Amino acid sequence: MNDIDFMKEALILAKKAFELGEIPIGALIVRDEKIIGRGFNRRSIDASPFAHAEMLAMKDAAENMRSWRFDDCTLYVTLEPCVMCAGAAVQCRMKRIVFGTRDSKAGAVGSLYNIPADKRMYHNCLIKEGILKAECSEILREFFSQKRKNNI
Amino acid sequence: MNDIDFMKEALILAKKAFELGEIPIGALIVRDEKIIGRGFNRRSIDASPFAHAEMLAMKDAAENMRSWRFDDCTLYVTLEPCVMCAGAAVQCRMKRIVFGTRDSKAGAVGSLYNIPADKRMYHNCLIKEGILKAECSEILREFFSQKRKNNI
Repeated sequence: MNDIDFMKEALILAKKAFELGEIPIGALIVRDEKIIGRGFNRRSIDASPFAHAEMLAMKDAAENMRSWRFDDCTLYVTLEPCVMCAGAAVQCRMKRIVFGTRDSKAGAVGSLYNIPADKRMYHNCLIKEGILKAECSEILREFFSQKRKNNI
Repeated sequence: MNDIDFMKEALILAKKAFELGEIPIGALIVRDEKIIGRGFNRRSIDASPFAHAEMLAMKDAAENMRSWRFDDCTLYVTLEPCVMCAGAAVQCRMKRIVFGTRDSKAGAVGSLYNIPADKRMYHNCLIKEGILKAECSEILREFFSQKRKNNI
């Protein structure tokens, strides 16, 4: 499986979030080409601002691995991580971050900041962006479009 | 109680961390002059890079309040928050962040970044630093000094 295949899996998780009325963002942790952690945005369901797709995928992977060593892992996420999640990925010493589409208002992996690439940080992650960008944007656009319609 | 009194309480939590062999950092959440959440660094004990004092104090407060609305709360922490914790405080819409001493290598509230004061973010926090700075630095210095001695 390659980056596109894994991003397709992250999109499936984003769709789960959509079906539950959550902003559709999905994330995976991959190690040795195997998915070891999954998460989707559950901010509303969990009523927690920490319940971002990436945080939940990292927790899930840590439980499955029984370790927080992510230095041979890749985080796949449909939307550019925010400051908290980018900081958490650095804390975990994540090897790579691959994301679909940018978040121009809150993204911290190229938009407002590029935290995991900042040489002053004690750890840097490799970064790849734009994988299935159109699909990752489209699901968000569709969600907010439906939401606006329902609010009329 | 004022900022100094609350920082003294955060230092008591930092001491608990010290006694358990953890880097001594303590944090509180205060609302209406009452402590509603407490946390100290448990990175080693919990074997989790997310178990920072601030994250645990926010979780504790959210459980006690049964809400993640922190817009009338203050986060007190002995050491300047890292990127993850500063991002989490913004996610929680924390009203104020009060910290003791700077973390020149990883601090994100004035040192490497000033995330909660960045006008591009969807929320800003009031920031006050230097409360019991000497005490908050000293406990860290003592911890690392003891650690070095034990490693000889």
